[in-house]
Amino acid sequence: MKILLIHGPNLNLLGTREVGIYGVETLEEINRRCLDLAHELNVQLDIHQSNSEGDIVDLIQSAHGSADGIVINPGALTHYSYAIRDAIAAVKLPTVEVHMSNIYGREDFRHKSVIAPVATGQISGFEGDSYLLGLQALVRLLRRG
Amino acid sequence: MKILLIHGPNLNLLGTREVGIYGVETLEEINRRCLDLAHELNVQLDIHQSNSEGDIVDLIQSAHGSADGIVINPGALTHYSYAIRDAIAAVKLPTVEVHMSNIYGREDFRHKSVIAPVATGQISGFEGDSYLLGLQALVRLLRRG
Amino acid sequence: MKILLIHGPNLNLLGTREVGIYGVETLEEINRRCLDLAHELNVQLDIHQSNSEGDIVDLIQSAHGSADGIVINPGALTHYSYAIRDAIAAVKLPTVEVHMSNIYGREDFRHKSVIAPVATGQISGFEGDSYLLGLQALVRLLRRG
Amino acid sequence: MKILLIHGPNLNLLGTREVGIYGVETLEEINRRCLDLAHELNVQLDIHQSNSEGDIVDLIQSAHGSADGIVINPGALTHYSYAIRDAIAAVKLPTVEVHMSNIYGREDFRHKSVIAPVATGQISGFEGDSYLLGLQALVRLLRRG
Amino acid sequence: MKILLIHGPNLNLLGTREVGIYGVETLEEINRRCLDLAHELNVQLDIHQSNSEGDIVDLIQSAHGSADGIVINPGALTHYSYAIRDAIAAVKLPTVEVHMSNIYGREDFRHKSVIAPVATGQISGFEGDSYLLGLQALVRLLRRG
Amino acid sequence: MKILLIHGPNLNLLGTREVGIYGVETLEEINRRCLDLAHELNVQLDIHQSNSEGDIVDLIQSAHGSADGIVINPGALTHYSYAIRDAIAAVKLPTVEVHMSNIYGREDFRHKSVIAPVATGQISGFEGDSYLLGLQALVRLLRRG
Amino acid sequence: MKILLIHGPNLNLLGTREVGIYGVETLEEINRRCLDLAHELNVQLDIHQSNSEGDIVDLIQSAHGSADGIVINPGALTHYSYAIRDAIAAVKLPTVEVHMSNIYGREDFRHKSVIAPVATGQISGFEGDSYLLGLQALVRLLRRG
Amino acid sequence: MKILLIHGPNLNLLGTREVGIYGVETLEEINRRCLDLAHELNVQLDIHQSNSEGDIVDLIQSAHGSADGIVINPGALTHYSYAIRDAIAAVKLPTVEVHMSNIYGREDFRHKSVIAPVATGQISGFEGDSYLLGLQALVRLLRRG
Amino acid sequence: MKILLIHGPNLNLLGTREVGIYGVETLEEINRRCLDLAHELNVQLDIHQSNSEGDIVDLIQSAHGSADGIVINPGALTHYSYAIRDAIAAVKLPTVEVHMSNIYGREDFRHKSVIAPVATGQISGFEGDSYLLGLQALVRLLRRG
Amino acid sequence: MKILLIHGPNLNLLGTREVGIYGVETLEEINRRCLDLAHELNVQLDIHQSNSEGDIVDLIQSAHGSADGIVINPGALTHYSYAIRDAIAAVKLPTVEVHMSNIYGREDFRHKSVIAPVATGQISGFEGDSYLLGLQALVRLLRRG
Amino acid sequence: MKILLIHGPNLNLLGTREVGIYGVETLEEINRRCLDLAHELNVQLDIHQSNSEGDIVDLIQSAHGSADGIVINPGALTHYSYAIRDAIAAVKLPTVEVHMSNIYGREDFRHKSVIAPVATGQISGFEGDSYLLGLQALVRLLRRG
Amino acid sequence: MKILLIHGPNLNLLGTREVGIYGVETLEEINRRCLDLAHELNVQLDIHQSNSEGDIVDLIQSAHGSADGIVINPGALTHYSYAIRDAIAAVKLPTVEVHMSNIYGREDFRHKSVIAPVATGQISGFEGDSYLLGLQALVRLLRRG
Repeated sequence: MKILLIHGPNLNLLGTREVGIYGVETLEEINRRCLDLAHELNVQLDIHQSNSEGDIVDLIQSAHGSADGIVINPGALTHYSYAIRDAIAAVKLPTVEVHMSNIYGREDFRHKSVIAPVATGQISGFEGDSYLLGLQALVRLLRRG
Repeated sequence: MKILLIHGPNLNLLGTREVGIYGVETLEEINRRCLDLAHELNVQLDIHQSNSEGDIVDLIQSAHGSADGIVINPGALTHYSYAIRDAIAAVKLPTVEVHMSNIYGREDFRHKSVIAPVATGQISGFEGDSYLLGLQALVRLLRRG
Repeated sequence: MKILLIHGPNLNLLGTREVGIYGVETLEEINRRCLDLAHELNVQLDIHQSNSEGDIVDLIQSAHGSADGIVINPGALTHYSYAIRDAIAAVKLPTVEVHMSNIYGREDFRHKSVIAPVATGQISGFEGDSYLLGLQALVRLLRRG
Repeated sequence: MKILLIHGPNLNLLGTREVGIYGVETLEEINRRCLDLAHELNVQLDIHQSNSEGDIVDLIQSAHGSADGIVINPGALTHYSYAIRDAIAAVKLPTVEVHMSNIYGREDFRHKSVIAPVATGQISGFEGDSYLLGLQALVRLLRRG
Repeated sequence: MKILLIHGPNLNLLGTREVGIYGVETLEEINRRCLDLAHELNVQLDIHQSNSEGDIVDLIQSAHGSADGIVINPGALTHYSYAIRDAIAAVKLPTVEVHMSNIYGREDFRHKSVIAPVATGQISGFEGDSYLLGLQALVRLLRRG
Repeated sequence: MKILLIHGPNLNLLGTREVGIYGVETLEEINRRCLDLAHELNVQLDIHQSNSEGDIVDLIQSAHGSADGIVINPGALTHYSYAIRDAIAAVKLPTVEVHMSNIYGREDFRHKSVIAPVATGQISGFEGDSYLLGLQALVRLLRRG
Repeated sequence: MKILLIHGPNLNLLGTREVGIYGVETLEEINRRCLDLAHELNVQLDIHQSNSEGDIVDLIQSAHGSADGIVINPGALTHYSYAIRDAIAAVKLPTVEVHMSNIYGREDFRHKSVIAPVATGQISGFEGDSYLLGLQALVRLLRRG
Repeated sequence: MKILLIHGPNLNLLGTREVGIYGVETLEEINRRCLDLAHELNVQLDIHQSNSEGDIVDLIQSAHGSADGIVINPGALTHYSYAIRDAIAAVKLPTVEVHMSNIYGREDFRHKSVIAPVATGQISGFEGDSYLLGLQALVRLLRRG
Repeated sequence: MKILLIHGPNLNLLGTREVGIYGVETLEEINRRCLDLAHELNVQLDIHQSNSEGDIVDLIQSAHGSADGIVINPGALTHYSYAIRDAIAAVKLPTVEVHMSNIYGREDFRHKSVIAPVATGQISGFEGDSYLLGLQALVRLLRRG
Repeated sequence: MKILLIHGPNLNLLGTREVGIYGVETLEEINRRCLDLAHELNVQLDIHQSNSEGDIVDLIQSAHGSADGIVINPGALTHYSYAIRDAIAAVKLPTVEVHMSNIYGREDFRHKSVIAPVATGQISGFEGDSYLLGLQALVRLLRRG
Repeated sequence: MKILLIHGPNLNLLGTREVGIYGVETLEEINRRCLDLAHELNVQLDIHQSNSEGDIVDLIQSAHGSADGIVINPGALTHYSYAIRDAIAAVKLPTVEVHMSNIYGREDFRHKSVIAPVATGQISGFEGDSYLLGLQALVRLLRRG
Repeated sequence: MKILLIHGPNLNLLGTREVGIYGVETLEEINRRCLDLAHELNVQLDIHQSNSEGDIVDLIQSAHGSADGIVINPGALTHYSYAIRDAIAAVKLPTVEVHMSNIYGREDFRHKSVIAPVATGQISGFEGDSYLLGLQALVRLLRRG
């Protein structure tokens, strides 16, 4: 079983940026924890970060046929990228949307996700743990069939 | 460590009601799985279901001093009960909001949660697993301090 | 054949309250007329009034398996109780929404019913007769199958 | 006692058009049932169908002095014809607005009736029976004075 | 002369909850001050707190015939309970709406009161004193006739 | 010089309908006063009333080449007939929009005229005199060139 | 009979300012034409221009008891001065609102007049003639009683 | 194969009206080009123009059983005629909506078509060619089955 | 201790204007009652009325350093004067906003106060008593520190 | 004559993705048909697909001076890419916007095109044929001058 | 060359008021710096501050013929004074709008400037320097012609 | 001291594109003037233009640690790129947003900048000079500390 994990724009700055909101863990540390959990769950994990909407669409399309599910934190693209939404709808893979912060406790524009209606489920507000919970949820879902 | 788990209105009908949306698992089965996980995590779990907003406010208030955190699926009250929101804000306990279905893929009125801004995090879309993930997330959060 | 008739908040004050809007007939008199019609139509009628949303949700849930249809005037809860809406959707019984006054000729907030999308039909504006027409409509519907 | 019954645009296609929404009964069959009920209630019934807003305004104006009340299904004109609304307000006759389908369970634009604020009452969702219930309600209303 | 004083949901937590917003005075202390003032003004004061909308509707209805006026802080129900609004409109007693905090300086959803249009007057922003001013205003109003 | 005067739907009921809003003068009397003023101003006046939007569009089109200006009270069509608006814009004749009542002191839907942006000017609120003022304004405008 | 004529902010620039919109006539010339018509109609005309909302409120208040009616072009204050609206409502004198340009054919913010709901009637779009028509309309109205 | 071609209100003025927007071609010339293309495509073309919504609804209804598809330019009715929309939905014939101008580059109210959701496709912005492209598209669609 | 009391536009007309809404008491009588209460409370009261927003801003600014608190009824300026709001925020003195009528039971535009978010508290609906209650509330607040 | 044909994000998946909406034809097949038609019309066709907004802006800019017109299906970027809109407006080449599905019969967010106001025309709803019709329309437009 | 510099309401309090937002510089110090820069740029600077909208309109009108350009910080009037907007549009002088704070990072109502559409340019967020930059920008603009 | 200057999409076309709005100066000429000023102010200037949102996010991130401030004209991305907004907020460098045209005098969608709330200040409307003023403002800000 293979999972694609995608980090959207600015998430490469984690741990250095607005730690009051996102916590002090760096992206590398989160990825390490995700790989450990993947190993424990006996799944293969393919991790990417990009600041470009086009690259993320390419990534999602590439999952078709090569991965069994997607965990994605689309960052700020969450709120306007209908192109990412269409890509997820097109590949028809189970997709879990994760956010590190509670997006509903922040600015108004962050309350709306254009991705959510095509995602299988969402997890938000648990900092780095959001990724681990998302991975776990996705694997359980895939295993149950 | 003690956790309060609250099911809002109509969730007592789970497994019999709109199984296309909520799955075939009954509330009893979900509660059983939650108790098993609680046991495994070595936490005490106190479970309640109510169709009444007033009762749920009472329950949340009672958690103050007697519980360490709350997992709540407020059902339809999610979308308008500012009284529940105020109760959660008042007791100041870490609170995880869970939904069995992906509320963003359903009717418009279900896209807005008045509870979310005061919750610590949200998990939605994984049917019965949403509760298990929520419980896990809350315990991890409480253990880290 | 058994019908559940539910009166929502403040309807116990009928005949004494704002008679310019609701007419002079008391709830007791309306119930009497409904029972007479039920007798004539050869159906059993179970009547309840409550000021509490939670109690009304309980009542609707209890109809599942014990009644064939519901006539409900949700009073002011018409405009915001998604919990009642979910209960009606869950029990999947034919449900007729009735209002004594023409809710479209009154304040703006009364123009929107959150119950209507899940009801079978609505009748409003005929004072006490709205109930009789609703009962009649429901029985005809049930008899036709 | 004389009642004017008006069918708005496209209702001449009933029974052939979108039977999932409107049922299989034709307009002729509905009119037959209405005439039977009128006979039973001892009232005279004058029935018209038109696809033209102007003709419907003419019809309503003609009721002034020649009819005692109006039953109208304005079809799609329900949602924008302020001219029909003004005609109803002008003739000051008791007017019952009927719809065959539950307009609140359909597209958003059908949720708003510009006619409703000037109607005496509304009945919707009971297919052909909506007309019979409307006729009955109107006669009862006129007989009570 | 008898006055009914109603505290809505979560107000039983006063003095312990969000003291930055509501101050350190407990509900008991506020009630004590209200009773003292009532004694001074020579009126009888009947005090209730409830977290349940249905109970508050019952309380207001019970005031009809037994009390001369109402002072009410509906808490979070201020913003959506049309059932409470209808109860106040039905009993037709002079009713003063009070809030401890300045609701217009807080979150957007608190700026709108569905109760205000049927209240006689509103007082907000003076912490515990809001109740005393409301009581005083109501008595003066009742005495003037 | 020739002027086309058009009365929209329901204006044939003037003097009999809602006299509190429109006054007691009948359409015939208003037309008589308009013809007298036309004679005095030495212009020819062609007067029509119709309840049909299509007929009014035909009338406006016919003015092209045969009349020098238009005075129109579109009645309820004021608020939604973009077809009449397009007809006025197409014939490019000076057009004065008149209303007998002050449309801004009535229901919200009457505050917006879809005709106004293509009219030369508007006059509203002076009952029958609105027509006389409109005719006078139009003639002065045409005479000045 | 005495009429108060008020010109609001920036109207002192007429004839020099945006002549494409307002025409080439100066305020002095318009006032001259108004005085001539007033003389012809045998009424006394008191004319003021001010750029200050407060001064205009003072002027309107002063009309109470000293004038029989008001003609006012509130200029840009038309769109937000509820203070002028309240003053007009308070003095209860027949008041005609005039505009030189067609305010409905210009920017969106000019489509709404907060004065209109309390005015007797409005006239807009006839450049300097708007004042003459307004004066005429007001005098006719006052003479008829 | 038979196609019904319908021109809505004011389109009879083409070539004379606002040529900057619609071009200089007259309706007669466009119809001539359409007939030529129909002949070339070996289909029969039935052409109508009307300023009346009711007549257009009649025309569409008449296509049921007598035509294989519809090309329609509803003119200004595009933006509010739910009656035409219902007629198209009822006859269930492939229908192409055409506009001569680019409706999205004009006034706001022209950006929304209430017809579009029930049409098979739309073509706008190519002046007279819009009709030819629409006819071509429809025939190809019908031929493919 | 010194208090500044400000009456906004049109309040000089009290007792003569719309007595159904504001009562029969004149501004002079209200001021008299306020001075009596101030004397009783042993505070100095400085009273002003103005129809001009600019003058009211000047007054509030002058309070800085010379007064201990402000009681203000901004009249219609309540709904749009961000300049008065900024002045109150700038002088940082405790400020009580008062209204004689219940502004939430009147026209829509009166439901929103742009002043309220920077005021300490609001009192509305008690006619002349609103001022007395406001003065009392302010003094209590200042005395408590 | 040279035409630039641009396919936006996710259109490379055509024929494999959501065939219920977009049909079974692949992008390669559509391109083949377009090239055949281009050959027939004697124009050169330059075809590109990209998932990246920035690349599409580059492509459009490159058309300036090297192509005579553009056919573009911006995919999901249709609904928010003001950068593409600005690029089209800047190069000032005739541009036809095409969509394979009827975007007005799908989700709300697809009803609005930010590209449409600067396009010459739009064609939507004819699956692969939309491209052919767009190419044909553009060539006819360019040939006419 | 002569420049008019206008400071709107409450700006006379600079340096004393909300220094967290506006900085510690007083209006006198800012004016001093502006005069120094004006001297350096060899232009004459005429400086005014007023809390009154009417006075500011007078000032702007007076610039016509006596000044070459305007620098204005309208303070809170920025958000609603269409009278100032009209005055600026009328005198047709190059006008630079300046704000000391970043108005887009503050309350919602400050995000909209009704002045901006008629200004030549805007500068905001640089505290006292905003004025210097505005003066510089205006002079450069005037010198270039 | 080092400044990063970023030009967003389509700005490479300056001087050739819509010169009525943006002026005739090319991007090269503006960059030349900026470099001259930078030299004069003794700061290093790093200039980039890109049509890709992802590239611009990369650029802003790269400024962290290598530059002291940013001047950015995000072009059309101004109105929807929350990814650029987040990048600016993350690097926490003083950032000046510039626009060549007055964005408030153009289409509605250009009135809202999603970047502005996180920028230090904005300058718009002075064509190429906007960049020079922005550079100057930023340097002054950085020098003052």
